[in-house]
Amino acid sequence: MSRLPLPIQNLIDEFSRLPGIGPKTAERLVFYLLKNSQEQLNQFSERIKILRAQITICQNCQNYSLKSPCEICSDPSRQKDIICIVSRPVDVVAIEKTGEYKGLYHILGGAINPIEGISPENLKIKQLENRLNSSNGQIKEIIIATNSDMEGETTALYLAKLFKPLNINITRLGRGLPVGADVEYADEVTLAYALKGRRQM
Amino acid sequence: MSRLPLPIQNLIDEFSRLPGIGPKTAERLVFYLLKNSQEQLNQFSERIKILRAQITICQNCQNYSLKSPCEICSDPSRQKDIICIVSRPVDVVAIEKTGEYKGLYHILGGAINPIEGISPENLKIKQLENRLNSSNGQIKEIIIATNSDMEGETTALYLAKLFKPLNINITRLGRGLPVGADVEYADEVTLAYALKGRRQM
Repeated sequence: MSRLPLPIQNLIDEFSRLPGIGPKTAERLVFYLLKNSQEQLNQFSERIKILRAQITICQNCQNYSLKSPCEICSDPSRQKDIICIVSRPVDVVAIEKTGEYKGLYHILGGAINPIEGISPENLKIKQLENRLNSSNGQIKEIIIATNSDMEGETTALYLAKLFKPLNINITRLGRGLPVGADVEYADEVTLAYALKGRRQM
Repeated sequence: MSRLPLPIQNLIDEFSRLPGIGPKTAERLVFYLLKNSQEQLNQFSERIKILRAQITICQNCQNYSLKSPCEICSDPSRQKDIICIVSRPVDVVAIEKTGEYKGLYHILGGAINPIEGISPENLKIKQLENRLNSSNGQIKEIIIATNSDMEGETTALYLAKLFKPLNINITRLGRGLPVGADVEYADEVTLAYALKGRRQM
């Protein structure tokens, strides 16, 4: 035997193909799982198997959901005149946690990234355009809440330009010092934004 | 909805309990799996489910195997008079890959680590003692191939002391510069070992 037993090697191979998991990490995970009970393995196994079974994509906001339209899109208490545009479903979770936003969302499924070959056509921008066009002017504002990294900024600029003719109020998430940050260690760009965006106390 | 759909959240929870996988990494893995085909998910799921089903522990060497005694222990072409002691099953794979070793193995299942509460009783040392005692002097040498970190060294010293009365040749893996290493960047201890262990050319 110069190899690991096949059931072990096969599962190492499965973990190895996940993003950011190398063969050494995969090995560690599988040897950890070997010490799990069969009940634990069955539960993990079942949860992978049924992951996609009940999940659909909301026809409006393009988020993963158990139904379409999703809970947020079909919630009568949400504001229908404002759409927050995010890159990924986890961004929705983060914004919902603030409790500060009661409007709708649109999930792009990523951000423009020429190096990785992600262009506007690879994102759910067409669906957003259709949504805005078919709203008969009901949408008053779109908040572009993509990340403040290069890809997020590129996407934000692209969308702002694209939707300018629609005469909708286009906003971007505010920038400045994050809560708990030291002025001393803030980068210059962030500090410049914080100065420009200073508020009356 | 301030939460992710339950099938997604449940699988994130599963990945999060694996060692070295935080909630953010788990999220990334699950969103990656969401883009997999159902066939891929079924295969991953199945491989987790059957991981332990066929695997047993070899009664001799304590390695994971499809049968007991394992392929190595039951291979008539292997030298029966030498045992290589390693911490983990992956170490066996590494040594087998060299093609330089034709003896038997013993897997301790870890290394002595007082901080993490791993003492000699938590390792398969008793089984090794029984193996040596019941061999009627057939074992001529044990190679202690634990890691050269603190835990591995502690374990090696413990075993060397424990088996000294048995009058077996006890050896430790050689130390020095790894292949491809720069003398300039070698640490002092390694370099000292390399000098002491210098060889005639």
